[in-house]
Amino acid sequence: MKRDPRDVVATKRDGRKLLDEELRGFVLAYARGEIDDALAAAFVMAAFINGLDTDETVALTRAMVESGETLPLDGISRPKVDKHSTGGVADSVTLIFAPLAASLGLVVAKLSGRGLGHTGGTLDKLEAIPGMRTDLSPEQLERQVQEVGCAVAAQTKDLVPADGALYALRDETATVPSIPLIAASIMSKKLALGSDLILLDMKAGSGAQMKSLADANELASACIALAEGWGRRARAAVTDMSQPLGTAVGNALDVAEAVRALRGEEKGRLTDLVVEFAAAALASLEGADEDEARGRARGALGDGSALESFRRMVEAQGGDPRVVDDPEAVLPRAPVIAPLASSQEGILASVNAEEIGRASVMLGAGRLRKGDPVDPAVGIVFRPKIGDRVERGQPMGEVHARDESDAAEAADRVRAALTFGETEVEPPPLLYGWHGA
Amino acid sequence: MKRDPRDVVATKRDGRKLLDEELRGFVLAYARGEIDDALAAAFVMAAFINGLDTDETVALTRAMVESGETLPLDGISRPKVDKHSTGGVADSVTLIFAPLAASLGLVVAKLSGRGLGHTGGTLDKLEAIPGMRTDLSPEQLERQVQEVGCAVAAQTKDLVPADGALYALRDETATVPSIPLIAASIMSKKLALGSDLILLDMKAGSGAQMKSLADANELASACIALAEGWGRRARAAVTDMSQPLGTAVGNALDVAEAVRALRGEEKGRLTDLVVEFAAAALASLEGADEDEARGRARGALGDGSALESFRRMVEAQGGDPRVVDDPEAVLPRAPVIAPLASSQEGILASVNAEEIGRASVMLGAGRLRKGDPVDPAVGIVFRPKIGDRVERGQPMGEVHARDESDAAEAADRVRAALTFGETEVEPPPLLYGWHGA
Repeated sequence: MKRDPRDVVATKRDGRKLLDEELRGFVLAYARGEIDDALAAAFVMAAFINGLDTDETVALTRAMVESGETLPLDGISRPKVDKHSTGGVADSVTLIFAPLAASLGLVVAKLSGRGLGHTGGTLDKLEAIPGMRTDLSPEQLERQVQEVGCAVAAQTKDLVPADGALYALRDETATVPSIPLIAASIMSKKLALGSDLILLDMKAGSGAQMKSLADANELASACIALAEGWGRRARAAVTDMSQPLGTAVGNALDVAEAVRALRGEEKGRLTDLVVEFAAAALASLEGADEDEARGRARGALGDGSALESFRRMVEAQGGDPRVVDDPEAVLPRAPVIAPLASSQEGILASVNAEEIGRASVMLGAGRLRKGDPVDPAVGIVFRPKIGDRVERGQPMGEVHARDESDAAEAADRVRAALTFGETEVEPPPLLYGWHGA
Repeated sequence: MKRDPRDVVATKRDGRKLLDEELRGFVLAYARGEIDDALAAAFVMAAFINGLDTDETVALTRAMVESGETLPLDGISRPKVDKHSTGGVADSVTLIFAPLAASLGLVVAKLSGRGLGHTGGTLDKLEAIPGMRTDLSPEQLERQVQEVGCAVAAQTKDLVPADGALYALRDETATVPSIPLIAASIMSKKLALGSDLILLDMKAGSGAQMKSLADANELASACIALAEGWGRRARAAVTDMSQPLGTAVGNALDVAEAVRALRGEEKGRLTDLVVEFAAAALASLEGADEDEARGRARGALGDGSALESFRRMVEAQGGDPRVVDDPEAVLPRAPVIAPLASSQEGILASVNAEEIGRASVMLGAGRLRKGDPVDPAVGIVFRPKIGDRVERGQPMGEVHARDESDAAEAADRVRAALTFGETEVEPPPLLYGWHGA
């Protein structure tokens, strides 16, 4: 880059539009270590405050993809679907969706992240299964997808390294919640990987990064625009995260809930959302009628074929496959399992889902800082949904903790996150709508 | 600091006002090395874009002063005057003002900087005098001021270290030209030093940091507000920098011009501005009538008393005192001295003074990066002023260079920085006005 990189920063600082080449040069120089963190932080803050328009977001995303290798997965002939969620509480959609899609004839090669903040991470959940490995090489990932139909692995350092560096910098410099920066981060990882359809789950509500529906819709539009700019097919659902999606908030607890869903034993919102995503994939990739596709998805959850795909994925990644037969016997178990009784009565009017996520992090299920270890056994089970009537003293679930004191503290924190009323409350919709085609 | 420092950054990022304690905690933690450059850069960019109001600028300045030691100079009984210029081209006001003020019964203890960018630095100029030292300890500075009446020394690391760190960071991250950040930087250094009057020279025009009069006025107001908040007396002049102030743009050349002014041989705008500052100091500190004060100042330049103060200051700081008798014999001399002839004719309508400063930097008189060495001998002498008639081929001055090729390039650059017209041009005022009392 011949230009002084400070000129690029000054342009964004003054609210002027950056040329494709300017953004590209800056991001690639940062990824090569030629621009230091201080100048990059100044740039990211200027972009946060003054915004990036669609052209700039496309250029940023393109530069992030270019910063590393890509994984086209060209050798796979079946329709490939990728899926990403912006993160929520009691949200094990990926654990269920990947084997379900595989059992329906699609393939899912998914690179996932770890939990950070109050939201859980798919890798942490999978690693609660004894023996399970997530550090697959690109070749292992492709072979497993070919053979099993699905694989969920950790991102490698070679793929989109600029995103890894920028995300860590944003986390450190109070510049995470910016819609164009989030969109570029999400989509650079999806675009670096070959797929025929990208499904995005944009969570909105108290347990999501985006608390408002408007922000979730804006992020969905930004991501779809990026996919379209690349000529890639993508659909983004804006879904409810105003309460935990399922009932399990912890790693082993999440796996156990996913196994129940894969067996067809879970009949709530978590399964309903997985079915919506599977139907959307079948409709987009095979032109299936959505109602008929929902039927096929529910069928695969009922007849054991989705469960069988999960068993094969666990086995292929070194995990104990008996987890599908008797999860409680295989998964780690917390020393203390305390009932979570309601201290109030009435109709559940609202849930601060982020607080429930944080209570689980406090128990050890998540990490406060990147790199912290997590305890796979601990967590919270919370069953009531908004609109349900709850009696005083009624068991609402359990706290799985290392000791009684942690359990009591987490239970208090969950109870403080609830509000009850006396009037009927309409449950929030599961899915607000779709962006993209 | 108990708070997560990222919360302070997020507050300014979102355009909200910071509490005194928040800013103070952040700046002091940065000065102690507890906050890294990336987070500080994000903060500075947020402050640049979203601004700092008067309360915040006061809190920032106070924290910067608190980050190090102060030098009250309590032992000095004569009236103490400090002076700061925002920097210009052919601007050796300090070199002349300090000994002149001393000869008028005032004292000047001045901490100066080095040149950076296109503007010259007082320390670099003084060090063109063989033997001259500027690294005085606080005790040496105070003793010299007591004995000689004036001293010009380099800033120490113990004084306002947060400003040193923040200035270097701003230079690196495209966040220099922010009025509240500049005001805090200037005033923290003035407030850390004892004085009875702070005189500020806010340059406006093509050779200044602030190109517009409006920005220079705004910076003057911000600095005066900070001084008033401390109960310190300050006056700020907004002065013209739309052309070089004197005629010498180089280090030894500047010293030679200052000596001529101290001998009363320089009759132009440079001397006129020095006289204005001296008169303002006498009026503010002794209640003198300004016209009578101007007369006293011109008298001290004519009768050798200001020159004698300069000789004593040079001698006290280890420099060769014969510089006041025969500057050309003592000061270093460039190997090539080429005449600077005009390639056009007409009335000089405008001068890009920054370009003339940059041409001198290119010759070696200034530095492109902090820490680069400077060549004391090289530079440019440029005599015409806006409104003067210049004939084609007329010598406008000289280029003092290391070789013919440098000299030719610099001469071309100076000529390209000039515009000529055929109509009369009113010379710009020397001084636009004063802020403060």
